[in-house]
Amino acid sequence: MSTLCQPHVLFPQHKITQQQMIEHLESLHSDHPRMALAKRMILNTEVNERHLVLPIDELAIHTGFTHRSIVYERAAREMSSAAARQALDNAGLKPEDVRMVIVTSCTGFMMPSLTAHLINDLGLPNSTVQLPIAQLGCVAGAAAINRAHDFATLKDDNHVLIVSLEFSSLCYQPDDTKLHSFISAALFGDAVSACVLRADDEAKGFRIKATDSFFLPNSEHFIKYDVKDTGFHFTLDKAVMNSIKDVAPVIERLNQAGYQQNCAENDFFIFHTGGRKILDELVRHLDLPSERVSLSRTSLSEAGNIASVVVFDVLRRQFDSSPKPGSKGLLAAFGPGFTAEMALGEWAA
Amino acid sequence: MSTLCQPHVLFPQHKITQQQMIEHLESLHSDHPRMALAKRMILNTEVNERHLVLPIDELAIHTGFTHRSIVYERAAREMSSAAARQALDNAGLKPEDVRMVIVTSCTGFMMPSLTAHLINDLGLPNSTVQLPIAQLGCVAGAAAINRAHDFATLKDDNHVLIVSLEFSSLCYQPDDTKLHSFISAALFGDAVSACVLRADDEAKGFRIKATDSFFLPNSEHFIKYDVKDTGFHFTLDKAVMNSIKDVAPVIERLNQAGYQQNCAENDFFIFHTGGRKILDELVRHLDLPSERVSLSRTSLSEAGNIASVVVFDVLRRQFDSSPKPGSKGLLAAFGPGFTAEMALGEWAA
Repeated sequence: MSTLCQPHVLFPQHKITQQQMIEHLESLHSDHPRMALAKRMILNTEVNERHLVLPIDELAIHTGFTHRSIVYERAAREMSSAAARQALDNAGLKPEDVRMVIVTSCTGFMMPSLTAHLINDLGLPNSTVQLPIAQLGCVAGAAAINRAHDFATLKDDNHVLIVSLEFSSLCYQPDDTKLHSFISAALFGDAVSACVLRADDEAKGFRIKATDSFFLPNSEHFIKYDVKDTGFHFTLDKAVMNSIKDVAPVIERLNQAGYQQNCAENDFFIFHTGGRKILDELVRHLDLPSERVSLSRTSLSEAGNIASVVVFDVLRRQFDSSPKPGSKGLLAAFGPGFTAEMALGEWAA
Repeated sequence: MSTLCQPHVLFPQHKITQQQMIEHLESLHSDHPRMALAKRMILNTEVNERHLVLPIDELAIHTGFTHRSIVYERAAREMSSAAARQALDNAGLKPEDVRMVIVTSCTGFMMPSLTAHLINDLGLPNSTVQLPIAQLGCVAGAAAINRAHDFATLKDDNHVLIVSLEFSSLCYQPDDTKLHSFISAALFGDAVSACVLRADDEAKGFRIKATDSFFLPNSEHFIKYDVKDTGFHFTLDKAVMNSIKDVAPVIERLNQAGYQQNCAENDFFIFHTGGRKILDELVRHLDLPSERVSLSRTSLSEAGNIASVVVFDVLRRQFDSSPKPGSKGLLAAFGPGFTAEMALGEWAA
């Protein structure tokens, strides 16, 4: 077994309300024939505010992939170390206790990966296993948790540090004028998290009992990047909304196998917030009252979809809600592939 | 335990000899003050020939990251499936037997990763775990082997398909005129490999006994990318040559712990071919006669440094050399970080 300890989540300093974002898009594309529809759809996302690594007027001028990569790297180095130090402290561990470091981020690219920076900056052991994950998008946080759990199962001092960081704003493409680009530009937010998975269970948190992975065939076009001179261009096919009906039975099967009960009988949920509609589909197909995923809804409202960081932001909110020891929960996230990663866990206090 | 089965290695159709590459660089940069020195250093690499996904005259015109990403994706989809089918056949497994698919590639970027393509195209199970590794450069092949071994240790049907592909030529930057850029342009080659790690040991090959990871502090600048509008720009600090003296004692310690003997007493070596000097440093610090790494030297001469594919190309040559059952070997690769990944194994026949 292994336990996900209390994560530490950081947000960059610049904030933008959804109203400000709508005004920004309206002013930038004042003659766009579908702006009224875009505005309605953006209001429908139920994102109220997001954090950005640069103010929106700077982001509206595309300074190129070269410049944005420099901004990405500087912010990544600063914020990842700060989050990681606090996460180690939350877990009651020291840098020398870490055996593997995983970094997830799909909104910029560095080689060496930030795993190298973290070993140097925190003073992790020279034998630390590095696992950078760049290509799993929004599901990468849950994938990191499940791979960390695998590694922790091998040895009871195989503690893992997971750092997730997304500066989605550096993938904002002001010249992309398709409807789905406007929605993405108003949906994704920036954030950094760090979380320790303790292999010895000597901590409070989400104690993992079982994990599962799911891939939906022939759905590569649902969520994808076009890689261009101007960086990563996100594209989303609305067919992605149909994926949850296929994932829900897999989630129920994992839940039945681990707890011998339906999801509806679980105590808590740590769900990725792909968007409001994804959460609506989840509660519908898992037969849950809507308020059971309120932690995810609050995260979406306060931070936007922060990609691989979401599950850690929701986990942080779960810590704050003082759950009962032994309560039964489920963690799940979704991303490109189409891919889902799921974990069953009980609350250890 | 787990066994690396016979890999399948494919090369793209275009070939270039080192003499042709020198002529190309001389013609492109006829007034460069250090071209004579560059020529001597390129001859010193002992690369005779390389394979390229596009002919050199096309590569000399930088068509932009947008266009190169399209070329990368098409070649990656075609060649990865072909290599993977043969690798499964070599391992005596069917697509439905695969539990994890790892793809390593640092010379292009796709999201969804090629792992999604392989699940779709080969018909791997919907529960297949995906692990795309983009940021470990030349060490990614050995890192994939070691993470596959970890996963296989959990369950004896946890078979892993590892696909490595590098189209380094699509990172050729004809406008980069520093000396190290000329050397890189003449050193790195294109190739694709696929290899199955069987968790149940029911196959011939490299049976893994133990693995280790090593990180050299404060060496992020040794091997790195600058990420620009024109794609990935490789930079190499010559200080990287000093890294092997620090890695060698770690390799010897792993060897002593597993075999109770020095590396010099081993029967075979599957070494990454960072370059001629890296191989020279390895034999010097491990006290080996130079011809003990002849498989790596031949790979370098015939294909150039094919990054994360190298260890699989050398493993393929090891299969062809009909090693004695029970002979003792060591696999090691090096890459950005500076990072080394190592595995001890015996030959199973």
